Amino acid sequence: MAEVNRQIVLDQLPQGKLAPDHFRLAEGPLPAPGDGEVLLRTRYISLDAANRAWMQGATYRSALNAGQVMAGGALAEVKQSRAAHLKPGDLVFADTGWQDYAVLPAAHLAALPRLEPITHLLSVYGIAGLTAYFGLLKCGRPKAGETVVVSAAAGSVGSLVGQIAKIKGCRVVGVAGGAAKGALLVRDYGFDAVVDYKAGDTRRALRAACPDGIDVYFDNVGGDVFEAALFNMANHGRIACCGAVSQYDGAAPAHGPRGIPGLIVTRRLTLTGFVVMDFDDERDAALAELKAWVDSGRLKVAEDIIDGLERLPAALIGLLAGENVGKRMVKVA
Amino acid sequence: MAEVNRQIVLDQLPQGKLAPDHFRLAEGPLPAPGDGEVLLRTRYISLDAANRAWMQGATYRSALNAGQVMAGGALAEVKQSRAAHLKPGDLVFADTGWQDYAVLPAAHLAALPRLEPITHLLSVYGIAGLTAYFGLLKCGRPKAGETVVVSAAAGSVGSLVGQIAKIKGCRVVGVAGGAAKGALLVRDYGFDAVVDYKAGDTRRALRAACPDGIDVYFDNVGGDVFEAALFNMANHGRIACCGAVSQYDGAAPAHGPRGIPGLIVTRRLTLTGFVVMDFDDERDAALAELKAWVDSGRLKVAEDIIDGLERLPAALIGLLAGENVGKRMVKVA
Repeated sequence: MAEVNRQIVLDQLPQGKLAPDHFRLAEGPLPAPGDGEVLLRTRYISLDAANRAWMQGATYRSALNAGQVMAGGALAEVKQSRAAHLKPGDLVFADTGWQDYAVLPAAHLAALPRLEPITHLLSVYGIAGLTAYFGLLKCGRPKAGETVVVSAAAGSVGSLVGQIAKIKGCRVVGVAGGAAKGALLVRDYGFDAVVDYKAGDTRRALRAACPDGIDVYFDNVGGDVFEAALFNMANHGRIACCGAVSQYDGAAPAHGPRGIPGLIVTRRLTLTGFVVMDFDDERDAALAELKAWVDSGRLKVAEDIIDGLERLPAALIGLLAGENVGKRMVKVA
Repeated sequence: MAEVNRQIVLDQLPQGKLAPDHFRLAEGPLPAPGDGEVLLRTRYISLDAANRAWMQGATYRSALNAGQVMAGGALAEVKQSRAAHLKPGDLVFADTGWQDYAVLPAAHLAALPRLEPITHLLSVYGIAGLTAYFGLLKCGRPKAGETVVVSAAAGSVGSLVGQIAKIKGCRVVGVAGGAAKGALLVRDYGFDAVVDYKAGDTRRALRAACPDGIDVYFDNVGGDVFEAALFNMANHGRIACCGAVSQYDGAAPAHGPRGIPGLIVTRRLTLTGFVVMDFDDERDAALAELKAWVDSGRLKVAEDIIDGLERLPAALIGLLAGENVGKRMVKVA
């Protein structure tokens, strides 16, 4: 076991775009677990757009402060346990933060099933997979033959949303940045069409790709793409509001999308915001269904694994710029 | 029967605020019904904020054009019938437009029940009552003990929404313009509190009136009041999007409310737009429940009746300025 605990500290809260010098590398002593606690070794740290939103203010968790170890969820291994239900070697998902080791109360931690590759516990069987599953099926409620649009379609959640919508018999249009991502989504992930939001008029491009309107829009990005989709919704359409990555990396936006609430009324739309924890009761059933789809080859899992704790700041900044395909994570150990 | 058919024509489409000179009075011959049609005498014409929205473009109906008789729903009496299911003397609700007489296909018209006062067929047993009933109960889904906020609270829909929410055991806060309306809502309609949106910071006033947040917001107005409510929603709150009267009387707004979709996600809100026709299947059951509440004195019906066809333009302009309390209509005959 390493003698020191490398940590990446959020040195300053960003005012505008997140940059490498908002972080600094620090070292701390190896912490020791107290009664009811565990010492965890981080293995893979999950990178998520929400990490940036936490810097803006309170969300479903309290805001981050300058000077704290950067928060983040990780797949971690129990090294020492002072709790009855966990033993050394168990894998857990925990908010370890960006560091080699963390001591956490064990009460809310549960040993994960053993499966290979273990990175799937952070992608398709982790928050990304459950977010795609519950957001699409519970909030979007797609029916076979409907048109589903998903933004950030090449991301960890979007790539799964599109494939699950195909499994459910829908026509699927992805919104992603750049021709290369679009080609990949059609070729490897079965999307019916893609719209490149960097290529110009997204509203017009969506109209062309969805001539009968959008029945379900799974929104990962907010902002202009949200607005473009809103203006193309079919009557009785559903919008699953999952995140707003376009709004996270900068100052808070002054204005919201046009057409609200007018279009919501005239087209009888439903917008539903959700956070994956709201569906904990149905988690096991969802994981079983996801696993069946993965095992049968119907659901492909894209992962983007970067090596080395020190690369976490660059990995997050790159994620916010849309450079990843699939679930981005950093391998720590 | 009058020899001529007085008509109010939408002479020009307004670019900014609606004004009397956008209309002109005309006279036409008395129309004659063809096979399957009826000749209707308008009795009471309904004034609705939606009348103004129809001038902006296509909504749930096609846009109005300059030069046509102004559209509008009315309580009308059958004078001549060439359809088997309607006879002279029957009352119907029909889109007669703003004129003394109209000939319409009978296929979609149904004789209304006879009850007194017949104006209730345009208010609590008409679109206003059903809109309040379905919007609150189906989209808002209030539970006893929750806090319900309704805007345009002194209007035809709002005054009923507030009272129905009280019947369902909720705490009710109305948003209305001016101290007089607010006092009336508390004194005569049982509202627990009111916020005067003309008095300043609506967001702060709503926070004070709803310290635990808003569980259900019934939105009739859009714009700044919508935004103020959005920032005060409780987790898992529901917003019933009924209309956006603040947006109708002018050019289309450049920007929407701030906080969308960010707040929708973090507070897990649901926004649902609806149009009352979507609930036609459940209309009879709703009317029976509304009637039981009215008959027992639990639901008070506010009506604002103006006399004379020629006063329709001023009546609509005044409605858009918020001068009415309860359901505004013009008595034609």
